[in-house]
Amino acid sequence: MASHPFDPGYEQEPFRSLCEDYPGEETYPADDFRVEWGPVFHRGRLDGSARVVVIGQDPAQHEVVTRRILVGAAGQRAQGFLAKLGIDASYVMVNAFLYSVFGQGGGERHADDAAIAAYRNRWLDALLVGGRVEAVVALGRLAGRAFEAWKQTPAGRGVEVAFERITHPTAPESSAGGDPERYAEAVRGMLANWNAGLERLRPAIRHPDADRDPVPYGEALTDADYAAIPERDLPAGLPAWMRSRAWADRRGRTPDLKRATVVVTVPRDARPWM
Amino acid sequence: MASHPFDPGYEQEPFRSLCEDYPGEETYPADDFRVEWGPVFHRGRLDGSARVVVIGQDPAQHEVVTRRILVGAAGQRAQGFLAKLGIDASYVMVNAFLYSVFGQGGGERHADDAAIAAYRNRWLDALLVGGRVEAVVALGRLAGRAFEAWKQTPAGRGVEVAFERITHPTAPESSAGGDPERYAEAVRGMLANWNAGLERLRPAIRHPDADRDPVPYGEALTDADYAAIPERDLPAGLPAWMRSRAWADRRGRTPDLKRATVVVTVPRDARPWM
Repeated sequence: MASHPFDPGYEQEPFRSLCEDYPGEETYPADDFRVEWGPVFHRGRLDGSARVVVIGQDPAQHEVVTRRILVGAAGQRAQGFLAKLGIDASYVMVNAFLYSVFGQGGGERHADDAAIAAYRNRWLDALLVGGRVEAVVALGRLAGRAFEAWKQTPAGRGVEVAFERITHPTAPESSAGGDPERYAEAVRGMLANWNAGLERLRPAIRHPDADRDPVPYGEALTDADYAAIPERDLPAGLPAWMRSRAWADRRGRTPDLKRATVVVTVPRDARPWM
Repeated sequence: MASHPFDPGYEQEPFRSLCEDYPGEETYPADDFRVEWGPVFHRGRLDGSARVVVIGQDPAQHEVVTRRILVGAAGQRAQGFLAKLGIDASYVMVNAFLYSVFGQGGGERHADDAAIAAYRNRWLDALLVGGRVEAVVALGRLAGRAFEAWKQTPAGRGVEVAFERITHPTAPESSAGGDPERYAEAVRGMLANWNAGLERLRPAIRHPDADRDPVPYGEALTDADYAAIPERDLPAGLPAWMRSRAWADRRGRTPDLKRATVVVTVPRDARPWM
């Protein structure tokens, strides 16, 4: 028997209450959010050991299956970014939005909604107030706005922490519209932005998990720039292939069916019967 | 905000260790078990409050998405059976097998495997030794054999508990081969078996959650014979539709693709955008 560490989840307060009482469709309208898949709360350490808080944007199809955020492509790239800071275990991630954004502009439209912020701020309070977090990394503009809004609250004003907003890890996919040249250009821009972010963040991380020789990103994403999601970040029993690669898809012959469907496919090299 | 109780999972020992160290492909061969989806461990109370232990057979497609056992049709029928005993919350369920059985006879072939039993017995020890369980209900023959094997162990011999093996809740589907008359006949037989089981179990349940007027099953399954899975049985954040009806399917153009795929579809009446 191999040992499989797992994320123990939300038994301890204040997370238990945060995961029992969360905003639903009254706060996240179904026209702009995929509320039908339920909220996805976090990934990483909830035991106070986190040194870096990552704020993402919203969960997608891989996340509603694993019930942890940032496990798909964006998550594996973010994990690689943390690795370059020497942060392999001491992090915790939350999103600006509890539900997947549906359609264009849904995130923008609700970026400043008071009820969304009120709940999110309770998470940021729990993760940042009185803790030992040394830096906050926001992935993209909406995540940055979420942090800045929290920083204006009485609790936020009391917390001294380095803050860096970097380009969202799948911004190139979103902006390129399938055009390979625009994609390459967007990736180049993102990686330059990440290298600058790493430079500024490094002095703030006084307690990394590992002292790592800082290798900057190149001009394009390589396999090494994706880091597998650590086993201990996911719930008990999830298979290893759910922590790397892409394996969940939204599919359907009509827009309604596509919104209603997630197809999970075991990757070819993870099929033990073949 | 509505309150959404959830299952806190496996943070507490001995369950933490049981969910960290579990048998894999060396014990459950991939030709007979769908090891690629990972193990699914349990459903229900792990805090010692269970009065009834249910032993099921193996997880299927709904279970690998929710990561709790007996949530699909078999689970909703079993939940209805417990309700007739007045047991709404004080139960815990484990399966004979940690992984989904693949193909015909896979379960039979491994019914007496020592390594499978050794791990399963650790769960039964944790749930039954020194506890306050009043009855064990096995769903089907393989589940019954699992209990009887445990009862032969030193720990099992020391435990006094009522035991009843009833017909597996989806045995009619398995045996009827799509023939409506054979199905109706098999359901009739199952419900008669369940009524007899209820009669024998009732005196053993000295501490039901509710004193319920015993209404026996009829000749066919009605909607009332399915009970929704309680919200507190599933991990945090799962949408309500995952606790009732059928919503997960194995599909694929080839046998390989079918084995590799689970399609999750939000039921029509749970699509808030429509």
